[in-house]
Amino acid sequence: MRTHFCGLVDEALIGQAVTLCGWVDVARDLGGLCFVDLRDHEGIVQVVAEPSQAEGNAAVIATAADLGYEDCIRVTGTVRRRESVNDRIRTGQVEVVAERIEVLNKAEPLPFHAHENPGEDIRLKYRYLDLRTPDMQRRLRTRTKLVAALRRWLDGRGFQDIETPILTRATPEGARDFLVPARMHPGEFYALPQSPQLFKQILMMSGFDRYYQIARCFRDEALRADRQLEFTQLDIEFAWVEERDVQDTVERMMREVFNEVIGVELGVFPRMTWAEAMRRYGSDKPDLRNPLELVDVADQVRGCGFKVFAEPAADPAGRVCALRIPGGATLSRKQIDEYAAHAGKYGAKGLAYAKIGEDGAVNSPVAKFFEEAAFRELLDVTGAGNGDLVFFGAGAYGTVSDFMGAVRLKAGKDFGLVGEGWKPLWVTDFPMFEYDEEAGRYVALHHPFTAPAVDSIEDLRANAATAVSRGYDMVLNGNEIGGGSIRIHRPQMQAAVFELLGIGAEEQRAKFGFLLDALKYGAPPHGGIAFGIDRIAALMAGTESIRDVIAFPKTTGAQCLMTDAPSPLDEAQLTEVHIAVRTPEEAGQGG
Amino acid sequence: MRTHFCGLVDEALIGQAVTLCGWVDVARDLGGLCFVDLRDHEGIVQVVAEPSQAEGNAAVIATAADLGYEDCIRVTGTVRRRESVNDRIRTGQVEVVAERIEVLNKAEPLPFHAHENPGEDIRLKYRYLDLRTPDMQRRLRTRTKLVAALRRWLDGRGFQDIETPILTRATPEGARDFLVPARMHPGEFYALPQSPQLFKQILMMSGFDRYYQIARCFRDEALRADRQLEFTQLDIEFAWVEERDVQDTVERMMREVFNEVIGVELGVFPRMTWAEAMRRYGSDKPDLRNPLELVDVADQVRGCGFKVFAEPAADPAGRVCALRIPGGATLSRKQIDEYAAHAGKYGAKGLAYAKIGEDGAVNSPVAKFFEEAAFRELLDVTGAGNGDLVFFGAGAYGTVSDFMGAVRLKAGKDFGLVGEGWKPLWVTDFPMFEYDEEAGRYVALHHPFTAPAVDSIEDLRANAATAVSRGYDMVLNGNEIGGGSIRIHRPQMQAAVFELLGIGAEEQRAKFGFLLDALKYGAPPHGGIAFGIDRIAALMAGTESIRDVIAFPKTTGAQCLMTDAPSPLDEAQLTEVHIAVRTPEEAGQGG
Repeated sequence: MRTHFCGLVDEALIGQAVTLCGWVDVARDLGGLCFVDLRDHEGIVQVVAEPSQAEGNAAVIATAADLGYEDCIRVTGTVRRRESVNDRIRTGQVEVVAERIEVLNKAEPLPFHAHENPGEDIRLKYRYLDLRTPDMQRRLRTRTKLVAALRRWLDGRGFQDIETPILTRATPEGARDFLVPARMHPGEFYALPQSPQLFKQILMMSGFDRYYQIARCFRDEALRADRQLEFTQLDIEFAWVEERDVQDTVERMMREVFNEVIGVELGVFPRMTWAEAMRRYGSDKPDLRNPLELVDVADQVRGCGFKVFAEPAADPAGRVCALRIPGGATLSRKQIDEYAAHAGKYGAKGLAYAKIGEDGAVNSPVAKFFEEAAFRELLDVTGAGNGDLVFFGAGAYGTVSDFMGAVRLKAGKDFGLVGEGWKPLWVTDFPMFEYDEEAGRYVALHHPFTAPAVDSIEDLRANAATAVSRGYDMVLNGNEIGGGSIRIHRPQMQAAVFELLGIGAEEQRAKFGFLLDALKYGAPPHGGIAFGIDRIAALMAGTESIRDVIAFPKTTGAQCLMTDAPSPLDEAQLTEVHIAVRTPEEAGQGG
Repeated sequence: MRTHFCGLVDEALIGQAVTLCGWVDVARDLGGLCFVDLRDHEGIVQVVAEPSQAEGNAAVIATAADLGYEDCIRVTGTVRRRESVNDRIRTGQVEVVAERIEVLNKAEPLPFHAHENPGEDIRLKYRYLDLRTPDMQRRLRTRTKLVAALRRWLDGRGFQDIETPILTRATPEGARDFLVPARMHPGEFYALPQSPQLFKQILMMSGFDRYYQIARCFRDEALRADRQLEFTQLDIEFAWVEERDVQDTVERMMREVFNEVIGVELGVFPRMTWAEAMRRYGSDKPDLRNPLELVDVADQVRGCGFKVFAEPAADPAGRVCALRIPGGATLSRKQIDEYAAHAGKYGAKGLAYAKIGEDGAVNSPVAKFFEEAAFRELLDVTGAGNGDLVFFGAGAYGTVSDFMGAVRLKAGKDFGLVGEGWKPLWVTDFPMFEYDEEAGRYVALHHPFTAPAVDSIEDLRANAATAVSRGYDMVLNGNEIGGGSIRIHRPQMQAAVFELLGIGAEEQRAKFGFLLDALKYGAPPHGGIAFGIDRIAALMAGTESIRDVIAFPKTTGAQCLMTDAPSPLDEAQLTEVHIAVRTPEEAGQGG
């Protein structure tokens, strides 16, 4: 239908006939002389309909004069040099003199103009119009490039792209499953996978050696800005490997892919244990572009008169730490309160501070609990000087790390301290378990298939609380973009870990029997990693929201505004799959 | 963990130290001298543990003597030339003298030996053992190669790989949807897509120009040998195209990919209208490797005394045709009855025949309805000679074509007439609609978004019964491996087609409102195609069953025998998504 793309018409074509297809971006009728900006995915070119002796010229001008925004047309004409060059577009040296204009599809007046940037709900409802904007075209095309580059890298290194089922068995991995009633098995359900975790492990036991998949995964969780009901994961698994085999391979992959797709050099990734990351940054995914660091001050406050500090300082499970904000003394009382409120969202009961004026005068509600010299020593440990502010956090280790980590991020942003560029790192040596006070048992920090660093089941049982796993995360600019581990490959160890997680023998058999069986029949050592494609694409495209790199995302209300999914169904359709709707009220009454 | 793959140890490594990982394929202990066939995904190499002066030699021999089938081990040793060469394996010139053997995972006795080829149910239950067999490794690796080659081809030509949602809105496309209750929207449901059809059309309206996706699709249909609940489709769409743009592009793609993956030259694809395919082969996906053809004989039987022939011969909606089977006179009465029974499955009420003996004597139950000369003329038209058999089919055009097409296939197979090699073709000019007698309305032969060959809505309405669509199928060796069409790109035509299909204005709005809207705001002409990856992979791998090219398929009973999906769930999980089970009995009682 066309000979060239609009956005690629150039001086080499001057004097030649071309046929172009595209959308009318702008149409101006100067009374018998019409200018049309014709747009396709490559860009825009100017089309002119001007009076001439050619046959049908009047019809061409009449058609051009009648064109409207977003009409789909086909133009045949001749390329010539443009009199007034337009430097803002690639084709600005040339224009096409129309000899024929065919209206392929007339557009009605649009609900909004693509350049207006209406609210996100409108953008999502009319996604086909939103996706026509150069920004959205660029973002989606960046994602395509990313995925293609990853595949090419892995295809070239013996990784087998193997699909795993979407209709599968419910296996609890920490989030809620989506359920699918089985028509042929009344009362039974498939579940959508939260990840291909068990299938990829089974593939290693099946002799595939190296596997990958760009896999759709599903979690029925409340949506946050960075979560969708369905998301895309680059899932990789290796047989016969140890941690560094996996890490070194995928680090090289990421380095080369970032370079290829957006021309960024990530360099060699620094490595940090989970303990160090929590200590210095109060986070297991520290943003290293932010120079602020937490400083532990338990030694300085252990004997002080302020119980809020002194007690956790003396408790092995407690933490007292400080965060110095250079120049932070400019914060008003109200702004400091905002920090306290922010910390509160992460579990802080309060947020002590000390302000050091430009003249060295200290203003702090907690100073009174200290001898002056001791308080000065405390401040010195944090490195604080005139004009600085110091925040203090005290309490349980995890809680303090969380809220001080959050304060660190906010301060970094507020004070413009977050550097440019790309800061990747590996976080390693995660704890094997967290103790869930409410449930009264351990829960897995990664997932129940992650191998512990110790080989002995007795050692693991004896030291479960402090056991370190063989899990690792890849972090980039404060985002966990990948997470993986060496897996358990011996059935006895897997059963022992299940037991520590409170999964008894019967439940193990019912839920994970096939895994335990597979481990018995010659399972090789194996491990792998999974990367969040949506997040990586968003980072590469320079957008905060993963919805900007997903063609048809759901809202935070779990809806597709374009198609109106989800929707109510006929009773007959439900009957066919042997279910009935039970509203929350009915469920409540039923007990 | 290893320096080389087992299957790639060769003479270039003689004298060198290697570390190998793999499964014990065979272990023989000849009393202090042990031979181990060590296997990985690349193949097998012989490992020897023999007495020597080296430190720890006794331990190596003891470990080797204790090895069993499918144990996972790591061996360090030195490569040397083998005394007795084994020509059956790639590494047969060499062996590895073990200096260290580490048992990474001991295997329990297996439920079956991989070389035994147990029943498919056992294979599926222990899929991880089944997948270790060389046949299954080869099949799955062929599939990987196919998908990688297709992607590379499309990536290199500006096609954007874009993901479309799996949790979407129910849209009837002829098969049942899988339903997913929405937790956040009590009483509402997502559906799994039967194809990304509407999304890919929307992407063309969004300015993406060229799109592809290796897409998972879902149909809740009874499973046949060649259907799965979920299947994989290479989905392609082009903006600004006509039929030949799509066909020529994907034909070139298939030609190059078949050559790359399995070294086959498909050549230029012949083209055939749907009408011709039905006339000559009684099928819209004829296997051209089978030389048999149907011959229409209405002219020869119109005036005969046999009403079963004469009536359909005189009916424009009827058909009378013959199939000559060279050498078919050898068929016994019982064998002919088997053909009749086979035809019966496709709607035949009977299957008339004529046998011509080697001596020219004709044996036919229908001969008595004809003058001898007229019957001879009838046989002459079919080309039948001495020793041949002719089958006759008479009745409604579609039914006769179907069962005679089935007879043609069976005869081709039974008589060994199906040639070797690869016979692709395009089938074009499908009817736009089929009339569904039961429903009393038209149904779409492709799908409701396929454009008719006429541009005028009035023309379409006036000639709906005979209207031809712009749909096309790619057929290979009797399999429809791809189907596509030019789509409707004008909202008025789409609404008219919906109406002809009995979808009223209100239902159009409710189900397809977003499509009709999108068509209004500048939808370009567009079209595309979708290929069945499972089937193409099976053809390439030389297997009849698509289950052999799917890592974890479902049975014909819609179950995964490995994970035991689907499965019953706790009441609490159902309550959370606002549904309750209603068994067929309850549903019956409830009305």
